[in-house]
Amino acid sequence: MRPHLLSLCLLLVPTATLAAPKNIIYMIGDGMGPTYLSAYRYYNDDTSTKAVENTIFDELWRGMASTYPDDDTYVTDSAAGATALATGEKSYNGAISVNRQHIPIGTMMQLAKRQGKANGIVASSQINHATPAAFLAHNKSRRNYNEIADMYVDYRINDLPVADVMLGGGTDYFVREDRNLITELKQLGFQYTDSWQKLDSLTKMPAMALLAETALPAALNTEQPRQLATLTEKALALLTPAKKGFVLMVEGSQIDWCGHDNDIACAMAEMDDFAKAIAVAKAYVDAHPDTLLVITADHETGGMTLGAAGKYLWLPDVVKKVKATGRSIASQLKHADSDKAALELWTQLTSIELTDTEQATLLSTRQQDETELRKLSNQLVAKYSYTGWTTSGHTATDVAVLAYGKWRDEFTGFQDNTDIAKKLIQYIQQTK
Amino acid sequence: MRPHLLSLCLLLVPTATLAAPKNIIYMIGDGMGPTYLSAYRYYNDDTSTKAVENTIFDELWRGMASTYPDDDTYVTDSAAGATALATGEKSYNGAISVNRQHIPIGTMMQLAKRQGKANGIVASSQINHATPAAFLAHNKSRRNYNEIADMYVDYRINDLPVADVMLGGGTDYFVREDRNLITELKQLGFQYTDSWQKLDSLTKMPAMALLAETALPAALNTEQPRQLATLTEKALALLTPAKKGFVLMVEGSQIDWCGHDNDIACAMAEMDDFAKAIAVAKAYVDAHPDTLLVITADHETGGMTLGAAGKYLWLPDVVKKVKATGRSIASQLKHADSDKAALELWTQLTSIELTDTEQATLLSTRQQDETELRKLSNQLVAKYSYTGWTTSGHTATDVAVLAYGKWRDEFTGFQDNTDIAKKLIQYIQQTK
Ligand SMILES: [Zn+2]
Ligand SMILES: [Zn+2]
Repeated sequence: MRPHLLSLCLLLVPTATLAAPKNIIYMIGDGMGPTYLSAYRYYNDDTSTKAVENTIFDELWRGMASTYPDDDTYVTDSAAGATALATGEKSYNGAISVNRQHIPIGTMMQLAKRQGKANGIVASSQINHATPAAFLAHNKSRRNYNEIADMYVDYRINDLPVADVMLGGGTDYFVREDRNLITELKQLGFQYTDSWQKLDSLTKMPAMALLAETALPAALNTEQPRQLATLTEKALALLTPAKKGFVLMVEGSQIDWCGHDNDIACAMAEMDDFAKAIAVAKAYVDAHPDTLLVITADHETGGMTLGAAGKYLWLPDVVKKVKATGRSIASQLKHADSDKAALELWTQLTSIELTDTEQATLLSTRQQDETELRKLSNQLVAKYSYTGWTTSGHTATDVAVLAYGKWRDEFTGFQDNTDIAKKLIQYIQQTK
Repeated sequence: MRPHLLSLCLLLVPTATLAAPKNIIYMIGDGMGPTYLSAYRYYNDDTSTKAVENTIFDELWRGMASTYPDDDTYVTDSAAGATALATGEKSYNGAISVNRQHIPIGTMMQLAKRQGKANGIVASSQINHATPAAFLAHNKSRRNYNEIADMYVDYRINDLPVADVMLGGGTDYFVREDRNLITELKQLGFQYTDSWQKLDSLTKMPAMALLAETALPAALNTEQPRQLATLTEKALALLTPAKKGFVLMVEGSQIDWCGHDNDIACAMAEMDDFAKAIAVAKAYVDAHPDTLLVITADHETGGMTLGAAGKYLWLPDVVKKVKATGRSIASQLKHADSDKAALELWTQLTSIELTDTEQATLLSTRQQDETELRKLSNQLVAKYSYTGWTTSGHTATDVAVLAYGKWRDEFTGFQDNTDIAKKLIQYIQQTK
């Protein structure tokens, strides 16, 4: 072929450079270490078939990310983890998008707003909890819940709050004696509801729903099915009209809390709730191919392992039969009318047949506070399912990075958690 | 552009289909769960720099693999794991490339031999241990070490043993009273040595080196640096002349054994030995781009976590200072002349300053057998470094899949361990 023909042809070859996505859906499973993904696969396994079915996590898995904070502990908390994921900069444990000198670090949501994009946050915790907070606010401490809630209203870009859609829990922090942030947000034009039944009344941005005083109920305890999926659908519907696209952060907040409690049944129910929200986001990308979906975790919680005590065995069937979180089991057992009623409740809630010694321990622990009873309940479920746990805190293992959409290969392989944010920030900078 | 010109151009566009690799280097870190990779990164971190340096594992990380065996335990042993990785078929725990009916399942090494390729195995265990065995032999039980060793000689394809190069440990099984397999292999034309110093005497295939009675010494205890890297270099040099290419399996065998002992210092030294062998293989691919390098694990061992007891902390510096495996520490302490000498030895070997209570426990445990002393030693290192362990056995978490070379993207994302083998088998079937 003649040289000029060759160069003509080269114009036809697609280049590696893709235009930036119009919309970004960024989902964070708080505490969702890699073993949570393995566990959820086996928990979901249809045992009537020989093969183990892939989960939606498996379908989207692209890489891994390190999570260490900006100190010498190697183990991050959710605030430092979320700061890294929201800003591309590491900070100290407890930091809400500020550096060691307490100077604010710009977040991708703030950048998106400046670029004319819409923003949304969805969480199954109070919406001013560490992870969403690091996307919208700045504070030297994640514990300053009221200051953070105030900032959701007071921090303005182009005279507007940073987020156009906020769905989750937290009326305790937004409707206070000293300040009613809901009234202020309504004055700014926000639609608002505190009822699942009235979610349909949110018809356009800006909009907010706070559906609990603090966090939403645990997925394992609630009658409300698909909590996070429902809120994700609503957020996407509200954000879709945004002309320059949107950035939506969805947090599966309570996976972490189950991990802290070393409660495997709780964790699997939260994973399921998160998986259903991911399915909503994936379908959105299918319908809107100018959207990128990225999913990761801020860290692992609990040191969960599938196998314990020397046995080559993990028993998800034991986990599947547990009908309430350890916290709820403890509360119900504590309030039972008699020891006999407590033991019957135990069997009804867990389907685990205890030895005589274990029954005696359960009953004597019932005389103590609910914390001890919750710990014992979770230990028994762990023992019978061969689930291992090593800590009530976080661990430093790497976390999964999942992606979907045309840009997914950008997230393949090993990366630092800040690299994920840096890529998303680059995309947002290219907003047209 | 006119239609006929367009179609002419399409011929110039590179297609997604690559010709099969001529050579395959397949490396298996026995027991190397994903947390081992995170741990090794922080263990290697140059703390004088702010960033954490990537390891060779990080550079090559492409995906994850499930490891469940063909039963309802979800937790595999090394035999079933290696069978899946060597044949593409799952079997029961204990199986050496046979199915539940004890019928042999063809392995990729046997296929490679039939296709005219050369084969090699390198292991830091005895070479007839579960993982290499599943590539070369068939047995209903991994425990039948002598039968498996016999098969390395007796199982012939085109009148030749399956492997052309075998480097590792195991004279106890190959030089026996009932049969001297070394003599037989020499008669078949094998060069042989049992000495590190005489490794240079192996100049061409077929060749074998057995450098220990059973396993090679633990990386943390030996004076021999780069054990696995040295053997990998030798195997590659011997295999390179093969006209139709080769398949080389390299096992980092003892990572698993450290995991069973819950010995983090032992595990990190084995990871380091394995990493150095990977560096050799990676450089080989750079020099021979018709080679594919794939690295994975058969399962996780020990339920290792980085963080324990509620602390947000992992202390690799504690691990780095430990100078011997728990087994070696136990043996040395047991044989010390006095309690005083034992305590001095402890400090010298671990640099861990014990409390008075811990010292007393150490001394009383010294009166018991070495197993208890080893357990205590490993528990103390785990406690002071905040390393968590949940089992003396294996766990069901997914393992990392790393790849290097032109075909690396074939191993991106989530897959089953059998999928890795199936891809490699497809490549071997295309041998020219
Ligand atoms: Zn947490
Ligand atoms: Zn093992």
